[in-house]
Amino acid sequence: MKVGIIGAGRIGKVHAKNISMFVPEMEIKTIADPFMNEQTEAFAKSCGIPNTTKDANDILNDPEIDAVLICSSTDTHSKYIIEAAHAGKNIFCEKPIDYDLEKVHAAINAAKEAGVKLQIGFCRRFDHNHRAVYDMVRDGKVGKVNIIKISSRDPEPPPVSYVKVSGGIFYDMMIHDFDMARFLAGSEVTEVNAVGSVLVDPGIGEAGDVDTALVTLKFANGAIGVIDNSRKAVYGYDQRVEVFGSEGCAEDQNDTPNTAVLSTADGAVHGVAYKVMWDRYTGAFVAEMQAFADAVINDKETPVTGEDGLYPVLMAAAATKSLHEGRPVKISEIEA
Amino acid sequence: MKVGIIGAGRIGKVHAKNISMFVPEMEIKTIADPFMNEQTEAFAKSCGIPNTTKDANDILNDPEIDAVLICSSTDTHSKYIIEAAHAGKNIFCEKPIDYDLEKVHAAINAAKEAGVKLQIGFCRRFDHNHRAVYDMVRDGKVGKVNIIKISSRDPEPPPVSYVKVSGGIFYDMMIHDFDMARFLAGSEVTEVNAVGSVLVDPGIGEAGDVDTALVTLKFANGAIGVIDNSRKAVYGYDQRVEVFGSEGCAEDQNDTPNTAVLSTADGAVHGVAYKVMWDRYTGAFVAEMQAFADAVINDKETPVTGEDGLYPVLMAAAATKSLHEGRPVKISEIEA
Amino acid sequence: MKVGIIGAGRIGKVHAKNISMFVPEMEIKTIADPFMNEQTEAFAKSCGIPNTTKDANDILNDPEIDAVLICSSTDTHSKYIIEAAHAGKNIFCEKPIDYDLEKVHAAINAAKEAGVKLQIGFCRRFDHNHRAVYDMVRDGKVGKVNIIKISSRDPEPPPVSYVKVSGGIFYDMMIHDFDMARFLAGSEVTEVNAVGSVLVDPGIGEAGDVDTALVTLKFANGAIGVIDNSRKAVYGYDQRVEVFGSEGCAEDQNDTPNTAVLSTADGAVHGVAYKVMWDRYTGAFVAEMQAFADAVINDKETPVTGEDGLYPVLMAAAATKSLHEGRPVKISEIEA
Amino acid sequence: MKVGIIGAGRIGKVHAKNISMFVPEMEIKTIADPFMNEQTEAFAKSCGIPNTTKDANDILNDPEIDAVLICSSTDTHSKYIIEAAHAGKNIFCEKPIDYDLEKVHAAINAAKEAGVKLQIGFCRRFDHNHRAVYDMVRDGKVGKVNIIKISSRDPEPPPVSYVKVSGGIFYDMMIHDFDMARFLAGSEVTEVNAVGSVLVDPGIGEAGDVDTALVTLKFANGAIGVIDNSRKAVYGYDQRVEVFGSEGCAEDQNDTPNTAVLSTADGAVHGVAYKVMWDRYTGAFVAEMQAFADAVINDKETPVTGEDGLYPVLMAAAATKSLHEGRPVKISEIEA
Repeated sequence: MKVGIIGAGRIGKVHAKNISMFVPEMEIKTIADPFMNEQTEAFAKSCGIPNTTKDANDILNDPEIDAVLICSSTDTHSKYIIEAAHAGKNIFCEKPIDYDLEKVHAAINAAKEAGVKLQIGFCRRFDHNHRAVYDMVRDGKVGKVNIIKISSRDPEPPPVSYVKVSGGIFYDMMIHDFDMARFLAGSEVTEVNAVGSVLVDPGIGEAGDVDTALVTLKFANGAIGVIDNSRKAVYGYDQRVEVFGSEGCAEDQNDTPNTAVLSTADGAVHGVAYKVMWDRYTGAFVAEMQAFADAVINDKETPVTGEDGLYPVLMAAAATKSLHEGRPVKISEIEA
Repeated sequence: MKVGIIGAGRIGKVHAKNISMFVPEMEIKTIADPFMNEQTEAFAKSCGIPNTTKDANDILNDPEIDAVLICSSTDTHSKYIIEAAHAGKNIFCEKPIDYDLEKVHAAINAAKEAGVKLQIGFCRRFDHNHRAVYDMVRDGKVGKVNIIKISSRDPEPPPVSYVKVSGGIFYDMMIHDFDMARFLAGSEVTEVNAVGSVLVDPGIGEAGDVDTALVTLKFANGAIGVIDNSRKAVYGYDQRVEVFGSEGCAEDQNDTPNTAVLSTADGAVHGVAYKVMWDRYTGAFVAEMQAFADAVINDKETPVTGEDGLYPVLMAAAATKSLHEGRPVKISEIEA
Repeated sequence: MKVGIIGAGRIGKVHAKNISMFVPEMEIKTIADPFMNEQTEAFAKSCGIPNTTKDANDILNDPEIDAVLICSSTDTHSKYIIEAAHAGKNIFCEKPIDYDLEKVHAAINAAKEAGVKLQIGFCRRFDHNHRAVYDMVRDGKVGKVNIIKISSRDPEPPPVSYVKVSGGIFYDMMIHDFDMARFLAGSEVTEVNAVGSVLVDPGIGEAGDVDTALVTLKFANGAIGVIDNSRKAVYGYDQRVEVFGSEGCAEDQNDTPNTAVLSTADGAVHGVAYKVMWDRYTGAFVAEMQAFADAVINDKETPVTGEDGLYPVLMAAAATKSLHEGRPVKISEIEA
Repeated sequence: MKVGIIGAGRIGKVHAKNISMFVPEMEIKTIADPFMNEQTEAFAKSCGIPNTTKDANDILNDPEIDAVLICSSTDTHSKYIIEAAHAGKNIFCEKPIDYDLEKVHAAINAAKEAGVKLQIGFCRRFDHNHRAVYDMVRDGKVGKVNIIKISSRDPEPPPVSYVKVSGGIFYDMMIHDFDMARFLAGSEVTEVNAVGSVLVDPGIGEAGDVDTALVTLKFANGAIGVIDNSRKAVYGYDQRVEVFGSEGCAEDQNDTPNTAVLSTADGAVHGVAYKVMWDRYTGAFVAEMQAFADAVINDKETPVTGEDGLYPVLMAAAATKSLHEGRPVKISEIEA
């Protein structure tokens, strides 16, 4: 299975490296980036990638390439999905597909019509902890799902410049948790209510966003849920999920780099949490790429479909509207 | 310090027993209950209480008695507070004062005008775990409070007959968490939004209530919070609080009767949670009574004032309105 | 069931208080202490004990008294056991019975011949954590016992003056763990090997003792075990047991006063351990007295028999000999 | 830095794979195995190793090769160390160097005389948990080391045929813990006392070995320690270390593949432990190879020297002697 990677930024490089190390079924033939330079060329060489180019068309037009990884900037995702679909290539696309719902639908439809695989990069579904909770829920260990709680806090806020273009906390951060909520509940969200505050960085408030947010969720199956996000947790990444049901409760604890404990006169200190996202989710990035290879090679449905890419965007739109209007917003209001 | 207890039901007996065992500063002179019988008289004797009566006035009119514990049914709380205040007695009253806000205000005012102490029985403020979290927050260990999360789940739903008269989940169950939220935040709640479902017992739904609920909170200081309640957690009482702030996160873990762990081929099993509320909060009931004795004897403000009894009722009223109207409700709407 | 307490020192007072609060089946008629004074008389009154005396014979000769609690100094234990047995009274005696094996045997025999109950004060058998581990082992959850590990560390070393008369670390401290080892293994120890060092307090070394010790155990059933003791753990009482068997491993974690956790940039800090022995084993002291009442009233064997008092002394003697001679010592060498 | 690997069994392949994936500073030129076959050749190709051979001399005689990894059977280790040393190559050798002390000394001396690096494969020094404990100890967090405790239990006993040739539990299993004890204590062991039983597999007893063992350790600096081993823990790998000192206690908890917890009516179940050694110590194998590359390239002392390979063999010999003779054995008895 030959692949091309469009976009050689941070995430493109992570996937390239992971494929070269951990996904022997995949062979990267070409990596494209409009800002291709010597450094990136050296990186490509170190991963055993024979071709580098500034032109994504070199990948899209290459008949030898079976699948495309779209790791370029968000505004180009839907365009490349459509072009890759037309070229008959299977597609892995970083999240989100787009913030414009029409473009999202167009991209999903293009992939469907072309009969190619489409997987969206919601890597947290592949995290060892969250996956173990999911497995417990799927195996009926908690019975019927009643309450879902997700905490997701980052070590440091992003630059305000990023917040201005990212669409805000619901689009660039909580979108992962929206996906996780659907994933764990096995049911669609029908309504959200958002509350938020600017408690971390006044600059984020000036940019029109909040940095601390709580969103309650109603699911079609009657379950209810809540997600909390903060742009800054001084103790590092705090990523926990909890699924409470009729027969029990499955939850994970925050991940730490080791299990060492130091007991002194001041108490028992457990290790600090991860401070770097790439360390926290190392295994998840590998696993999602292995899953994509498996879906393409064995002709299975991808584990994160185009629709899975769509719904979190709907939820982000509804949460944003809810925050601004100070009232619960139904997903159907957004879809309409 | 001589006290009289009005009401010899379950909670009245718990306080009587605890005072006789753990609060040597207090001496119970009389216990009153309209259904006084031989069994209760024997109980009183075992606690060293010299007098039993069917008439609460025997307590209210006794000049030797310094303080009254009001442990009767909720509908009599405000009446007895007012009468005890007029009699110049310090007052410990079980929560809630009343569900009728006028009555609550009248009771609080009566105590104020009489210059007597009034403490409301929000015992969870005295729980060893929640108190330790509170102490961390109060001592500035988490910095400025940004997010408050409270989980409170009971082992079994109450009978539907109880739900019909209790005022519903927000009044009889979440009211403890409303108090805890204020206690931990050190700030008043200004707005709530409630979502709820009937997922445990359809009979509760038929009685017009929900058995699973999530309420988001906005605090005056900008912090946001969420409380989740379920009427039934198969693993027993699940009582956890979390306060996330600018400098860290304080949380407690659910309490278990012991720390034993069994590792077998199926995993490492930690002990079950408490299944009986009186076991779970044993120490808290003792501590609140010691605090009341301390407030009276040393002329300090009680640690749970009349206003502390009022605000959770306002929050319960707002949450109920929010659930019914499907929109966030400001506390000021209720107060008006 | 009427009881008399011989000895009104710290432990005598703890038992008196606990009985008055938690063991309604027992009524303390008399407490005796050669140094009886006003303070102790006031204490007795607060516990509802009608009689105080300087003469233990007032208890031993009182035909109304059913049981005697021997809480006097160790050198008087065997004498009082024998006298109480002759007087036909059931006996609870603090550990150890004596360090002189002949006296231990004489005391046990006296109780047997008189047909009275004898319970030794190894309170840790009643600790909530250790008991839960014991229950798991007894219920076969770990299968056949292969390895037993016990850690027992104190917050502060005792005064050197105490070490000089206590018999040393194996007699005054590890004796609890020797009992726990037999209790958990359900098998007798046949051989011990001791290693020790003076690492905490040079004065303890000058007094001829060690303050840090490891003793390996061989059990009759083939299991092996190890106990470690330190006179000083800066983080407080560290009391853990572990039973590893063919089907799993049961262990307890050290006890803390609460479950609160503070996560900051420095890591997640769990609460400090107990610093005061009476706080750590509060419940155990109550439970052992309830068990004694149950044994006497319902004519059951006591849960800690005279033999249970004998064996740990044999083990302490063997460990002391092993440490001095630098070789493993069989229990049969001591018994002979 | 060009390397050759002698021995393409399981551990040779693990190192080859890890180098190709995670140690870019190293380039494997040749892999040698007397049983070289098509499968191994394919494996070599997949790792980008250009040459395969049946003759280790192709590596030893290759002037381009800077370092040799000796992953062949134990009986050939010392021979290859000596030959590689004579050939001027830096050496990474799997543990143990040999069981014959003369051969061990000869190998160490050969490396010393040749001025080449020698690192022994005690991979557990590089484990994320044990390393974090080590760091705490090294940084003085526990003060002066008083007690060291190490638990090491395997999921399944090895075949009896292996036990017959491995030298027994002290040589093939506890040798890792002997190394860990020295590593953590920062002091040499002067005396050991071993107790052991056959509790897992009677066949191991028939082969003259034990399957359950406890060894107490005396260190030159006065600290004392204990190691327990069992050939079979039904719950999987149980690998824990604890260092107790004058200022605190550093310990790690057993590793689990994830942090998920399931609370049901039966208690809270944490995940099972690892069942496969390669999963448990994945990171450690990588880290030891990175450390070897670092030592060679930057001309540092290797983190596990030849002497570090020698001492655990001395301890295993002493423990074996102690078990057979039923007495403590000084390391100096073995060295002599």
